[in-house]
Amino acid sequence: MKEYRAEVHVWLKPSVFDPQGNAVEKAVAGLGHTGIRGMRVGKSMEFTVEADSKEAASKMVETVCDRVLCNPVMETYRYVLTARDGE
Amino acid sequence: MKEYRAEVHVWLKPSVFDPQGNAVEKAVAGLGHTGIRGMRVGKSMEFTVEADSKEAASKMVETVCDRVLCNPVMETYRYVLTARDGE
Repeated sequence: MKEYRAEVHVWLKPSVFDPQGNAVEKAVAGLGHTGIRGMRVGKSMEFTVEADSKEAASKMVETVCDRVLCNPVMETYRYVLTARDGE
Repeated sequence: MKEYRAEVHVWLKPSVFDPQGNAVEKAVAGLGHTGIRGMRVGKSMEFTVEADSKEAASKMVETVCDRVLCNPVMETYRYVLTARDGE
């Protein structure tokens, strides 16, 4: 069994309204930081996966994303998988 | 003025207890996905920055992170900055 570190980023789909992002954008502008716009807020998950190969680990991450971490109706995800030994 | 797209990831520091991460880890395990552990949950922010140079944009992102997006007592952040024209 090898160990992989997975970093998953979940975002609302571009077509979905993001009130949290709007609120943060207004807060940033209200504090005087101009020139920042199009703010979108998402979630990140980082975890260790134990699997026999990188392919198996990828499949595991995708299954968990599709079933638990991401709501496929409103959200999309992308992930990065790195071997613990730097493979 | 050039446009840059910034992607900021905010995590709880490793020494800070992450109850949300623990809850997600238990949910994942409870649904039968074994081999996943060390779950940490963070926030992601993606936004457009208008600045004269990449250095100026970097500085802006760091200021906003330090003052608004990240609580430096408990959290750390990292960011990726890419020019809109692919610089």
